[in-house]
Amino acid sequence: MVERWTRSTSLHLELDRSAGRRRALEQALRAAISSGQLAAGTALPSSRLLAADIGVGRGTVVEAYAQLVAEGYLVSHPRAGTRVAAAVRASADVVAAKEKTREPEFDLRPWSSDVSAFPRAAWASAVRQVMRDLPDRDLRYGDPRGHELLRQELAGYLGRVRGVRVGADQVMVCSGFSHALALLSQYLRRSGRRRLALEDPCLAANRETAVFHGLSTVDVPVDRGGMDVSRLRDVDAVLVTPAHQFPYGVPLAAPRRTELLAVAERMLVIEDDYDGEFRYDRQPVGALQGLAPDRVVYVGTTSKSLAPAMRLAWMAVPAPLMPELVRIRELTDRHCPVIDQLALAHLIGTGSLDRHLRRVRGRYRARRDALMSALTAVPSVRALGVAAGYYATLLLPPGVSDTDVSRRLAERGVHVDTLSRHRGSASTIDSGLVVGYGTPPQHQFAAALEAFIAALHASGL
Amino acid sequence: MVERWTRSTSLHLELDRSAGRRRALEQALRAAISSGQLAAGTALPSSRLLAADIGVGRGTVVEAYAQLVAEGYLVSHPRAGTRVAAAVRASADVVAAKEKTREPEFDLRPWSSDVSAFPRAAWASAVRQVMRDLPDRDLRYGDPRGHELLRQELAGYLGRVRGVRVGADQVMVCSGFSHALALLSQYLRRSGRRRLALEDPCLAANRETAVFHGLSTVDVPVDRGGMDVSRLRDVDAVLVTPAHQFPYGVPLAAPRRTELLAVAERMLVIEDDYDGEFRYDRQPVGALQGLAPDRVVYVGTTSKSLAPAMRLAWMAVPAPLMPELVRIRELTDRHCPVIDQLALAHLIGTGSLDRHLRRVRGRYRARRDALMSALTAVPSVRALGVAAGYYATLLLPPGVSDTDVSRRLAERGVHVDTLSRHRGSASTIDSGLVVGYGTPPQHQFAAALEAFIAALHASGL
Repeated sequence: MVERWTRSTSLHLELDRSAGRRRALEQALRAAISSGQLAAGTALPSSRLLAADIGVGRGTVVEAYAQLVAEGYLVSHPRAGTRVAAAVRASADVVAAKEKTREPEFDLRPWSSDVSAFPRAAWASAVRQVMRDLPDRDLRYGDPRGHELLRQELAGYLGRVRGVRVGADQVMVCSGFSHALALLSQYLRRSGRRRLALEDPCLAANRETAVFHGLSTVDVPVDRGGMDVSRLRDVDAVLVTPAHQFPYGVPLAAPRRTELLAVAERMLVIEDDYDGEFRYDRQPVGALQGLAPDRVVYVGTTSKSLAPAMRLAWMAVPAPLMPELVRIRELTDRHCPVIDQLALAHLIGTGSLDRHLRRVRGRYRARRDALMSALTAVPSVRALGVAAGYYATLLLPPGVSDTDVSRRLAERGVHVDTLSRHRGSASTIDSGLVVGYGTPPQHQFAAALEAFIAALHASGL
Repeated sequence: MVERWTRSTSLHLELDRSAGRRRALEQALRAAISSGQLAAGTALPSSRLLAADIGVGRGTVVEAYAQLVAEGYLVSHPRAGTRVAAAVRASADVVAAKEKTREPEFDLRPWSSDVSAFPRAAWASAVRQVMRDLPDRDLRYGDPRGHELLRQELAGYLGRVRGVRVGADQVMVCSGFSHALALLSQYLRRSGRRRLALEDPCLAANRETAVFHGLSTVDVPVDRGGMDVSRLRDVDAVLVTPAHQFPYGVPLAAPRRTELLAVAERMLVIEDDYDGEFRYDRQPVGALQGLAPDRVVYVGTTSKSLAPAMRLAWMAVPAPLMPELVRIRELTDRHCPVIDQLALAHLIGTGSLDRHLRRVRGRYRARRDALMSALTAVPSVRALGVAAGYYATLLLPPGVSDTDVSRRLAERGVHVDTLSRHRGSASTIDSGLVVGYGTPPQHQFAAALEAFIAALHASGL
C-alpha cells in the first residue's frame, strides 16, 4: 500500500499550525474535500508519506485520517487505502457541525495507568543497547521461562521492591496477568484440580479466563478487609489480590493474610499483584509470596507500571509447577520476544524503571490528592482504596444504583467503572464507582476531574 | 544485582586483544583465578559493569562468564551473582587443557536460519521511529488480531510476495507457527472437530502440539511429491507444507494441489509457509491460500526470515473462524506486543524487510551452491529440496541408518537432523539427513561445510 504512493505527488494542503498539528490537518482536509479540491474517490497518500511530506509524526496523520473516516469524509479499505468518500459533502457538513459542539470525552475507567507517561526514549535506547550487545545465539529459540538475564533482574527487583523470594530459575516471563491465569488454569486442569476460588467481586475477565480454560469457579465474598478467607473451602486453588483488592481497593486484613497462608497448605494460592509498585502513604504491603514461596504463585506485570501494550509480565513459581508450565509454553507460544525481554532487563538493571516509577508515582499521588480534595464537595460518596494504585473506589449512598450513576456520567462524557460490573454469582456488594484517576493523560486530568465532579452533582450526588 | 556493583571497584585484567575479545577475557580470567589473584568465593562485577569497564559488549562478558562457569572456574547464583568457584584450581587446569584440544562444533540442524544476519540496526531504528510516532492510545490494550497498521502491511506484503488473498480484517498476528497451530487446535477442539491429518514425516513438535491441545492426529504418507492427498479421509482438518515440505524439502505436486483444494470443501486446510520467502531457482510456489482463501488458513512467520526470538508470525484466517480465535486470544495472551508489531510494520512499509531478504537470499543461495558442489565428492548421497529454503535433505543409500550416520557426524562435532526423527506412526520413509545450511553464521559456513564433508567421508559415505 505504501509503495503505491512513494512515486506519487503528495497533497498540497494549507495547514494552520496555530491550531495544533492534528486539528490543523483535519481542518485542511475537511476544507479540501468540502471545496471539491479533493474529489470523491480520490486516493490519499499513505499516512507515512503524508507525514514525511508535511513534517508531522505518522501517528498524527493516522489519527486525522481516522477522525475523518469517523466523520464520513474519508473511507478506508485495507487494499485500496484511504479515499475521499462518495457524496460526502452534504452529510459531512452535518457531521462537522456536530463535531464542533461535541462534549469532550473523559476516560476514567481503571483499565490502564497513564500511558502518555511511557518512557519512550528510554525504551528506544534500551532496544538500541540490546541490539548492540545481544549474542547471536539469543536470537534463536530461547528458554520458555524467559531469558536468563531478565529472570535474574526480575528476581532481584521483585525481592527488593515487593519482598518476593524467588531465584531466577523459578521465574517465568509471560504476556500479562490474563496469560498467567490462562497458563495456571491449564496447569490445574491438567493435574485434575478444577475448582478455583475467586474474590467476589473480582475482575470479570478473570472469571471468564478460568472457565474458558476448563476450571469451575467458586465465589468468595469480599468486604472492606478483602476476601473473607474463613469461607474458603473445598477448592484446589484461590486467586487473590492481597495488596490492593480489585475492585474494592483495600488490602487483605492482616489476620486474613495469616489465615490464607495456613490454608495454602491445602491449595495453590495465586497472588495477583497488578499494581504493587504504586503505594503512597506508607511502605508497600509486601507480597504474600515472600511469606510462603513454596505455596504461592506470585504474578506481576508491566501493564500498569509501563503499558498494557508491552505484553510483559512475570510469575514467581514454586518449583513443582515449573516443568508443566514450561511444557505448556513449549507447545503453545514458546516464549516472549527476547529483544523486549532484554530491553526490560536493561531498564531494570540501569535503574531506569525505578526512575520512571518514581516519576509516575508522584503524578498519581498528586492526582489522588486532587480527587480526594475535590470529593469534599460530594459528601454523599465515600472513598475506599486510595492508599495505593491508580484508581479509587467511591461507595455510593444506600439505594443508589452504581449502574444508573455510571450511565448518567457517560451521558455527560465521563466514563467510569462500577463495583456491580464485577459482582459474581453469590454476593450482595456495595454500590460504588471505580474511578481510574491514573488513566487520563496528564494534561487532561484537571479537566477530567472537573467534569467528573460536575457530572456527580448533575446526577444528584 | 547490578546495583550492588555500580559503586565497587572493577577487576583489573590484562587483556591480550590479539586473541579476540571473548577469548582474551576468558584467558585473563582463567589466569587471574589460577594465579590466585582472584580467590575462591570472590564476587565478580556484573557483566554490564565489566563490559563498560573494559570496553566490550555486554554479550561478550556474559559469554565469557558462561564459558568459565561451564569450565568450573566460576559459579553463578541468581542472587549472589557470579563468583570464583571454591577449590577451583586443580580441576580447572584439567578443563582448560581439555578445552584447548576440543574440536569446534558446527550446528547444521535446520532450526533456524542464520541469525547473525538479523538486521539489528534496522530494528533499533524502527523501534525508535515507532516510539516517535505511536499515538498514546496504542499503548493500551489492543486488538487481539494485532495492530491494524501491521495487519494492513501484512495483507499487502503477503499478496505481493506469496499470492495470499486476504484483507487486513482477516489477519491475526501471533507468536510463531507453533502458536498458530495451538490456537487452531483449540479452535477445532472447541468446535467438536478433533481429527487432524499430518504429513508423515512432519515436524515432530507439530504432532505434540496438536495432541497437547486436544486433537487426535492421522498420519498421511509423504513421498517425493509431498503429501499423498488421495489418502486423506475421515479428518476434520489437515496441516500441510505445500511450498516446501518439511523435512523432505519438496513442493506439493501440482495434481495434488488441485486435489487438496477439492477436499478442502470438507475440511479445514492449514498451510504452514514457514520459509516461503526463500526460493532460488524460479518464481516461488505461490501460497495455496490464494486459490481458496475461504477454506485455507495460511500461516507465515518471521522465525526464518528474521529470527525465532522475535516471536512474530501471522495467520490469514477465513472469516468464520475469526470470532472464536479472537475469543481465545482475549482469554489467553490478548495480543502480541504492539511496539514489536509496529516495528515490523515499519520494516515492511519502508522496504527494509525486502532488502534484508534479498541479502540473505543471496547468501543462502551461495551456500546451497557450495553444498551441492561439495557433495559431488560424496556420490552416495542424493539431495532433495534444494530449490528453496535454508536446509537440504540428503537421501542416504538403502540400508544405511540416518540415526547412525548422524551420531557419527556428531562425534566429529557436526550436528545435523534426520528424516527418521520426524517419522510418524504409520510410514516407512527414506533414510536421510536434514542439513541446515542456513544455520551457521556466515564466517563459519565454509569451515562447517568442510567439516561436514569430511565427517561424511569418515562415516563411510
